[in-house]
Amino acid sequence: MKKEKLIVIGGDAAGMTAASKVRREHKDWEIIVYERSEYTSYSACGIPYFISGKVATYEELIVRTPKDFKKEYNIDAFTGHEVIKVDSSKKQVLVKDLKKETTFWESYDKLLIATGGKSFCPEVPHKDAEGIFGISTLRSGIKVAAYLKKYKPKTAVIIGGGYIGLEMAEALLLKGLKVSLVDRSEEIMNTLDPDMGALVHTTMKNLGVTIYLKEELKSFAVTDNRVTGVVTNKKTLPADIVILGMGVSPNTLFLQDSKIALSENGAVIVTKRQRTNIKNIWAAGDCALTTHLVSKQPFYIALGTVANKTGLVAGTNIAGKTAIFPGVVGTAVCKICVYEVARTGLLEKQIKKLGIDYTATMIKTKSRAGYYPGAKAIYVKLLAEKGTGKLLGGQIIGEEGAAKRIDVLATALTNKLTLQNIIDLDLSYAPPFSPVWDPVQVAARKLIKEL
Amino acid sequence: MKKEKLIVIGGDAAGMTAASKVRREHKDWEIIVYERSEYTSYSACGIPYFISGKVATYEELIVRTPKDFKKEYNIDAFTGHEVIKVDSSKKQVLVKDLKKETTFWESYDKLLIATGGKSFCPEVPHKDAEGIFGISTLRSGIKVAAYLKKYKPKTAVIIGGGYIGLEMAEALLLKGLKVSLVDRSEEIMNTLDPDMGALVHTTMKNLGVTIYLKEELKSFAVTDNRVTGVVTNKKTLPADIVILGMGVSPNTLFLQDSKIALSENGAVIVTKRQRTNIKNIWAAGDCALTTHLVSKQPFYIALGTVANKTGLVAGTNIAGKTAIFPGVVGTAVCKICVYEVARTGLLEKQIKKLGIDYTATMIKTKSRAGYYPGAKAIYVKLLAEKGTGKLLGGQIIGEEGAAKRIDVLATALTNKLTLQNIIDLDLSYAPPFSPVWDPVQVAARKLIKEL
Repeated sequence: MKKEKLIVIGGDAAGMTAASKVRREHKDWEIIVYERSEYTSYSACGIPYFISGKVATYEELIVRTPKDFKKEYNIDAFTGHEVIKVDSSKKQVLVKDLKKETTFWESYDKLLIATGGKSFCPEVPHKDAEGIFGISTLRSGIKVAAYLKKYKPKTAVIIGGGYIGLEMAEALLLKGLKVSLVDRSEEIMNTLDPDMGALVHTTMKNLGVTIYLKEELKSFAVTDNRVTGVVTNKKTLPADIVILGMGVSPNTLFLQDSKIALSENGAVIVTKRQRTNIKNIWAAGDCALTTHLVSKQPFYIALGTVANKTGLVAGTNIAGKTAIFPGVVGTAVCKICVYEVARTGLLEKQIKKLGIDYTATMIKTKSRAGYYPGAKAIYVKLLAEKGTGKLLGGQIIGEEGAAKRIDVLATALTNKLTLQNIIDLDLSYAPPFSPVWDPVQVAARKLIKEL
Repeated sequence: MKKEKLIVIGGDAAGMTAASKVRREHKDWEIIVYERSEYTSYSACGIPYFISGKVATYEELIVRTPKDFKKEYNIDAFTGHEVIKVDSSKKQVLVKDLKKETTFWESYDKLLIATGGKSFCPEVPHKDAEGIFGISTLRSGIKVAAYLKKYKPKTAVIIGGGYIGLEMAEALLLKGLKVSLVDRSEEIMNTLDPDMGALVHTTMKNLGVTIYLKEELKSFAVTDNRVTGVVTNKKTLPADIVILGMGVSPNTLFLQDSKIALSENGAVIVTKRQRTNIKNIWAAGDCALTTHLVSKQPFYIALGTVANKTGLVAGTNIAGKTAIFPGVVGTAVCKICVYEVARTGLLEKQIKKLGIDYTATMIKTKSRAGYYPGAKAIYVKLLAEKGTGKLLGGQIIGEEGAAKRIDVLATALTNKLTLQNIIDLDLSYAPPFSPVWDPVQVAARKLIKEL
C-alpha cells in the first residue's frame, strides 16, 4: 500500500483509537489529528466523578496527551484546531487555529470524522448565558468545576433526567448544592420504561433531589448574562448553575454544506465498515449513526464503548484491512446513588412503534441467596415477542449485580435468544453472588408463562 | 390424562422441584417423596456459610419442610425413608423406614430418581472413622457444626482443593482452626487451568492455609475410631477434623442391580427429557448424567443450578408435557476469601484430550475504570479454537466482577460465539462497573491476534 496522509477530525475515543490503529498497521503514513479542545483521549464518562470529587484531578481522566501520541505513535495531534469545512472534491479540509485565529487548507488522502457530540439544548432565550453547562467534553467538565469554585453556587437545576442528568445531580448534591431536576417526560430516565424509571425517581427523591415532571424548558432567567433561573412552562426555578442533560447531538454542523450524507438528527450515515457515502471519508463515535440490532433500524447513541469500537473498525478499514461494526443492542448502565441502573434492547414504546406484539413482566428478587448476608433487592423487567418468545429488551435495577447482569441479556439479544434459551443458560451460581435461579432467569420463567 | 401415582426418590432440589411441577400440572395425582435424611429442599451450597457462622442457623438454608410441602402442594414427603431397590418390571420400589428399621414395597406409575451425590472418598483404611466429613447433605453440615462444638478441634485437614474444599478451608479458618489442604494434583482448583489455580493458591496461602500438592491420601490415623491424622504418600498430617473435598459421586448404589443404565461413574444415563432407559422412570440432579455443550460429550456435574433445572424438566415431562434440558457449558463460581473465582467451558487439558487445536491467553486488567475509586485487579483467561476463533472456555478471578462476568462467556459458549463476536458484543459500561472495553473483551482482543 502506498504511503498515505490521514487526517482525523476529533481527538477523543473514536479518533485516537482509529489513528493509533492506522499507525500500528502503517509505520510510514502521515497521521494528523485536529482537536478543537485542549485535550485528547479522555474519559468523558468520568466527568461527573471529577466534579463530585471522587476523582481528584481531571488529569486522571486523560489516557494520552498529544505529547504521548507523538512519542508513542508518531501521531501529530493539534489541539485548539477546529476543522470548519470539508471539501471532498478537492480532498481538503479548512482548519481554524483557535489560538492564532487563522485558517488554512490541509489536504488528505483519507479522512476520518470523529467530532463527537454535544449536549443538546433547544433554541430558547439566553441559552448561551454563563453558568449553563453541557457535560460532553472534558473542557466543559473543567469549566463546571471552576464555576463551582469561583461562584460557590447554592442551587442547581438539571434539565433532563437521563444518565448525565442524574449523575450530575448526584455529583452536585455531594458538593453540597440544593438540586432540582426538570424533565418534560412523564417519568425520569426515558431510556427505561416508566415503571422502572419510577424506581429511580424514588431513589433520587430520597437522596434529596426535587423532581418536576412534564415541565418544559422555555427560557433562562439571567442577570448580566449569568444564569439565575430556569423558566419552564409552569414556573421559574431559581438556579445558580444549570446542567443540560437533554441528550446529545452530533457535532456535524460544519458538514452541512459538504456532500457527506447526514441523518435527520445530523449524525453521519455510515456503512458497517464506518465509511460515509464519500470515498476515502469515514466517520466514527458520537458523530456517527449506527444500527440497532433488535429493531434493525438506524440508531443514534453517544457512548464511550461504541466510540471505541467504531473507532477501531474505522481505523482498520482506513488502514486497508477489513472490519465490521455490526451495531448495538442499546446497552447502557449508570450508577445512581446506591443503585445500579442497567438497560438493553427496546423499550415498550419502541416495540409498540414497531408494531410488534409483545408481553412484559417485572420481578423483584434478591441479588444473592436469600440467606446469605448482604442480599439486596434486585428488579428485572423483560420484554419478549408474543408467540416466538424472542427477547426484545431488559432493564435491571439493584443495589448490586445489575450492571454486569445486563450483559447476559445484551448477549442474548445479539444472538436472538428466546426466553426458553435464557432459562436454559448455564449461568453461574454461588450463594454470595446469586440465587440458584439467576434473577434474569426468574424473570424469564415468569414471562414465558404469559406469552 | 388418568390419575397417576408418582414416587420421587430424594427430597432436595431436583426431586422437590419435579414433584412441585407435577402437582401444579395435576391436582389429583398421588405424589410421594422418600428422603433418606430428615430434611427436604435445602441449599447444600450454603453449608460452608452455616459452618463458618455467616448464616446463623441451618434452618435458614431450608426452603420448604415436609410440612410445607404437604400444606402448599399436597405432596407426601417421608423423611428418614431410604429407597434401597427399584424393581422396574413390577413397577415398585423397596423402601426402608430408617427409624422403625422396617422395609416395605411401594408401587408407582411413574418414578423419579433424584438421590443426589455424596462426597467421594477412595477405599482407604479408616475412611468411616468419626471426625471425617463430606459436605454433600445438610445432615453432614449439621454434623460438622456439632462436632466443632463438642470436640473443639484445633487442626483441620481438607482433602481436595476444589470448591467445597476451599470454601470449607475458609469456613474453618474463620472458626479459628489451623487448616491444611492436601491435593494430589499439581495445583489446587483443578476446575481451573493450573496458571489460574496458582492465583487461588497464593490467596489461600496468604489467608493462612498450608497447602500440600501432589500428595495422595493413603489412610487415616485414628484413636478409638476417631480421626487424629491424614496419612499421605509423603507424611502424616495431624488432624482433629477432616473434610473430604475430592469431588462428588452419584448416589446410585441401590440401582446397580436394576435395569437402569448407569455411566462409568454410576450416574444415571438420561435423555434430554431426563428419562432413563426404562419407561416411566426419570432421573434428575446430582445423580444423573448430563451433556457438555462445548465438548458434546456426556458430562457429570453436581451443581444446584443443574439440579433445579433438570428437576423442572423431569417434572414437566412426567406431567405429560414436553421440556428439554439441552446440557451445560460447565459454568461454576465460588467465593474464596476476597476473590470471586469463576469458570466456564473447557480447560486446556480437556481441549487437548479432544484433539482440538487451540490457543489461550490470560490478561490482567481492572474491574472498573482505572481512575474510579476501588478499581480492583481482575484476571481473565480465554481459550479459543485456532482458525475459527470459536470460544472454548474462560476463567475469571477477581476481587469483584468475576462472578457475573463469567455469564457472558457462558452465554457466548452456548451460542458458539467467536472471539470477534465477543469483541462486538454491546456490553454495559460505566466507570464504576467496568473499563470501556470490558475485561472479557480485552482478553478476546489479545487472543484474536494470536489465532
